[in-house]
Amino acid sequence: MEVRLLLLEGRTDVSFFLPLIKEFYRFRESNAGCEILPFSKDKELSRPICLIKYKTLLVILHANGKDNLKKALKAVFRAVERFEDRPTIIGVARDVDTEENILNWAKSTLQAGGFEPEVKNGYLLVNGITIVPFGIGDVTFDAKDIEPKKELELLMTLLAKKESNLSRLENSISQLSKDLERKLTPKDVMHLLAIARNYKGDSMSGLYRNFIEKLIRENRGLIEEFLDESGLRTFLETIAR
Amino acid sequence: MEVRLLLLEGRTDVSFFLPLIKEFYRFRESNAGCEILPFSKDKELSRPICLIKYKTLLVILHANGKDNLKKALKAVFRAVERFEDRPTIIGVARDVDTEENILNWAKSTLQAGGFEPEVKNGYLLVNGITIVPFGIGDVTFDAKDIEPKKELELLMTLLAKKESNLSRLENSISQLSKDLERKLTPKDVMHLLAIARNYKGDSMSGLYRNFIEKLIRENRGLIEEFLDESGLRTFLETIAR
Repeated sequence: MEVRLLLLEGRTDVSFFLPLIKEFYRFRESNAGCEILPFSKDKELSRPICLIKYKTLLVILHANGKDNLKKALKAVFRAVERFEDRPTIIGVARDVDTEENILNWAKSTLQAGGFEPEVKNGYLLVNGITIVPFGIGDVTFDAKDIEPKKELELLMTLLAKKESNLSRLENSISQLSKDLERKLTPKDVMHLLAIARNYKGDSMSGLYRNFIEKLIRENRGLIEEFLDESGLRTFLETIAR
Repeated sequence: MEVRLLLLEGRTDVSFFLPLIKEFYRFRESNAGCEILPFSKDKELSRPICLIKYKTLLVILHANGKDNLKKALKAVFRAVERFEDRPTIIGVARDVDTEENILNWAKSTLQAGGFEPEVKNGYLLVNGITIVPFGIGDVTFDAKDIEPKKELELLMTLLAKKESNLSRLENSISQLSKDLERKLTPKDVMHLLAIARNYKGDSMSGLYRNFIEKLIRENRGLIEEFLDESGLRTFLETIAR
């Protein structure tokens, strides 16, 4: 069994990546896959979600929030020592925010944890494990009333714009920006998406997941285009091909 | 120890009632209080939250959703048989929705569960326990672009209107209603409140709780007025005085 890990910032990121990996790369969830994992009840890491395809086990973990991602990455490397099948690839995705170079960020985080990562072909190598960092939100987005904050919700905003949900609210977005005397953030736009889609759930991450699942079902071409535009295709091909 | 129970529809209702009961009626949370309770791991009922004031233990439970409330009420009555100190009062709060008579609803639910409730002073009596039903959302609310659905979010909308958060978005609300070609629901308004308050959390119930806690701290008079207008005062005085 080849083991790969994907470390994310938080629950909303899991809601975003999970349907993409399951539907586009044909992994299926398997609790049994998780049982063999040597994660201790680490407060730095979420409960793992295990996905299986043929002889590949892809384990998704999150850090319970952006601020814990560095600690979580170190915790993953501590856990890796106890794996029977040492992971071949560890993907780490985080919001770009104002970080210009995600590779450097990952490298210095690992160095601070006492590791000596080597840079190779745009990836990092530590003890034979390939670390693939990915910055979420690195897209061109041009809308006069929306602040293009480089975060997960900007990708969701791009998707909602490609779909018709957002375009019919253009006047509302403009009026809101006027009333609030500021541009809307991508997170604000997600609340408008909830209204447009008549979403009743308590958690915003549930909305993300529903929305992506619906698009995959009904407008796969749009998601294909989006994967290329956001750089996600290259990342997903590496960890989930 | 006098034991009282409060059964609610779901998590969002807990987020709404908890700060009111803690801050206005000076109960404090106590896990120890919960340990003596004979609830089995009932899938019909949430984990109890225990609140204590002097010699009164107030236990809050929810039904994991509106559709399960009837089952949950019956589960509560089954559990009550196993209590060492039998509860004196059980409060049951639900959205009014289109139900015109909450007392009758509670009565027929209990009858369907094999109990013989007796009506007395607007309450129900079953085996010496007073059942106090409450309908959430029974307020007069007049706004041309908002549908006054009688539910928890209508109370929150009323609060947001009393505070300044909503009034500065009047034009946005009107534009949204135009773009969507429908009136906004109170749940839609909650998403606008999230935008206006720059709320970053994943769960809407977290917003409700933050908003109420802030108002209690900063504008207690407004909450006092709201308690009277919504009928909540009478209900809370009965279960939490």
